[in-house]
Amino acid sequence: MVKIGVIGGGQLARMMIPAAINLGFDVKVFAESREASASLAVTDVGDYRNETELVEFANEVDVLTFDHEHVPTSVLEAVRRTGVAVYPSPEALRLTHNKIDMRARLQELGIAQPLWTVSTSVTTFPQDLDAVGGFPCVAKKPVGGYDGKGVRIITSPEEIEDWMSHGPVLLEEKVEFVRELAQLGARSPSGEWQAWDPVETTQVDGVCSEVIAPASGLTEVLGKESRHLASQIAREVDVVGVLAVELFETSDGRLLVNELAMRPHNSGHVFTELSQTSQFEQHLRAVAGFPLGATGFLAPRGVMINLFGGIEEDRMKQALRGYQAAKIHSYQKAARSGRKAGHVVAVGDELLPILEMCREVAAVIHGGDYDA
Amino acid sequence: MVKIGVIGGGQLARMMIPAAINLGFDVKVFAESREASASLAVTDVGDYRNETELVEFANEVDVLTFDHEHVPTSVLEAVRRTGVAVYPSPEALRLTHNKIDMRARLQELGIAQPLWTVSTSVTTFPQDLDAVGGFPCVAKKPVGGYDGKGVRIITSPEEIEDWMSHGPVLLEEKVEFVRELAQLGARSPSGEWQAWDPVETTQVDGVCSEVIAPASGLTEVLGKESRHLASQIAREVDVVGVLAVELFETSDGRLLVNELAMRPHNSGHVFTELSQTSQFEQHLRAVAGFPLGATGFLAPRGVMINLFGGIEEDRMKQALRGYQAAKIHSYQKAARSGRKAGHVVAVGDELLPILEMCREVAAVIHGGDYDA
Repeated sequence: MVKIGVIGGGQLARMMIPAAINLGFDVKVFAESREASASLAVTDVGDYRNETELVEFANEVDVLTFDHEHVPTSVLEAVRRTGVAVYPSPEALRLTHNKIDMRARLQELGIAQPLWTVSTSVTTFPQDLDAVGGFPCVAKKPVGGYDGKGVRIITSPEEIEDWMSHGPVLLEEKVEFVRELAQLGARSPSGEWQAWDPVETTQVDGVCSEVIAPASGLTEVLGKESRHLASQIAREVDVVGVLAVELFETSDGRLLVNELAMRPHNSGHVFTELSQTSQFEQHLRAVAGFPLGATGFLAPRGVMINLFGGIEEDRMKQALRGYQAAKIHSYQKAARSGRKAGHVVAVGDELLPILEMCREVAAVIHGGDYDA
Repeated sequence: MVKIGVIGGGQLARMMIPAAINLGFDVKVFAESREASASLAVTDVGDYRNETELVEFANEVDVLTFDHEHVPTSVLEAVRRTGVAVYPSPEALRLTHNKIDMRARLQELGIAQPLWTVSTSVTTFPQDLDAVGGFPCVAKKPVGGYDGKGVRIITSPEEIEDWMSHGPVLLEEKVEFVRELAQLGARSPSGEWQAWDPVETTQVDGVCSEVIAPASGLTEVLGKESRHLASQIAREVDVVGVLAVELFETSDGRLLVNELAMRPHNSGHVFTELSQTSQFEQHLRAVAGFPLGATGFLAPRGVMINLFGGIEEDRMKQALRGYQAAKIHSYQKAARSGRKAGHVVAVGDELLPILEMCREVAAVIHGGDYDA
């Protein structure tokens, strides 16, 4: 059966393992340490920027995919030259490496997004600011940001002087959104596309905190537009695997693309319990060239809440004792303040009881530190 | 977090791995080969009858459990003396080692079961036969049978002469059952008990072929009796982990115990997709001393059909292409005629469409050899 290599040993790689076991796929993980969250499948330890190490790892598998987007394009191209499939492709992944490239490509495709421009110096900053509608605006480092890192809401140019001295900065309109959505889908090498209903996400300090599926009050028109937008991006950019499109919904009902991810995404964890096909299974099916699975929901509503810091055994037992229907996932990571340590999912007929259940579980796990 | 050791590397151990990953448990498997179905978690290779090897393996874990029931009691007792918890206990497991012990214990407990006796010689056979209602009757080798092996329906004593020369044979009434059911539940060391609704099973040549959940036309009375019976056995025998009770339902509505298994069981595979808690997760939670999960169903009906022989990639793709909602599990075992190679599950509102779906998937995987 198919041998899949995953670069990166974090929780996304970890959660691909159950999907691989169910499908009968072999999965091998290239990680920075044996103690990685995906340790059970770690076969190679090394540096993902090292071409020789990655080519060696790729030799053992049929297809290479990712738990993160940080592998340099040149390394991926070298791997692909050895004959191993790389999904998503280096050309597609490139857009996630640099937020300016991503904005430019979406503009070419005519996809709605916030006003944006590139600011390269304090001298031109005033004109650049005009192009994104003035202060407050959003400034982003083009490369290397994640989970709110590398993103600042600014009201003066001094706030990004440190970034400007190192290169261009992406400026974006600060969108007055009603809420944030995420549209996930997966695309196979043959072009088959399957999407889930869009979900509603809440961020705290730029980090995903809560996900509600499907998005509350989802109309047919909104769902159709959201899915269409993601399928257009997937097709035009030639994404293979899961594509997550983070969206702003504005008060006048427009959807603007905030960010893209070409891998399973935090906003899709809820599908493991809620959907007929989890995002991890769908990602593996897509990159392996297998037909995609059904994306229907097994219950009307689902909620996912992230758990931070660490998951202590006693608190986990207490939470499970109190909430028999709560599905707690622990990533087996060493505890560290603010770190994503796991998540909890509940599904049911009504939103409020499961939202409350997840918030109470999170409160127990966080030991009272959780601010609901 | 908890470290769980599993003796045996078959598909049951394999399917415990996803549950362990979700819960954040460490799982280590002691198998006869690195190429075992549960290979991803195999840490020790050896002979499960070898006390020294098993004690060494047990040293690395907090609790020892099983994918099969063949480990000798003396070996388990030796492991337990080192301070490692063994669940289910050697005392409970003993009943699954010898079908005569099992029958005697159930009789002590007043549990309804087929008429039975032990026949030790051709001379006494005629009286023994009377005790189980005459021919045809069921003869069983007390030790080592599984999946229909070691079980014969006989109409003459000559048919078991070969067994009799080696020791006592269990004779049982051939029950004229309406259908076969399986009642699964799990019990924790503290005595907490959670059961699923009983399922309906179809055997072909003594091997589980199809499972329908819940059993069709399940009444409250039948469900209550079935669950009560299993919880009584679990409590009295002190089972920790999953208990599967195979039952005959007679035309006058009685439930008679056919067999017991003290581990996840083929008849419970459907719960992975159908229930809020899979049998593998529940087993791990139970043996680890964690609170048990909810056993409600996410859809009104579920079907599981076993896949035999081997699962070829092309046929799996064909089946997945035709049936997007079918969940095919492949155990990654070398193909061998009649061997359990995987299973398919579908869940939905109505039985017939999902039963048909699973049968058609099985027909595709079996390459037209499937007799529906």
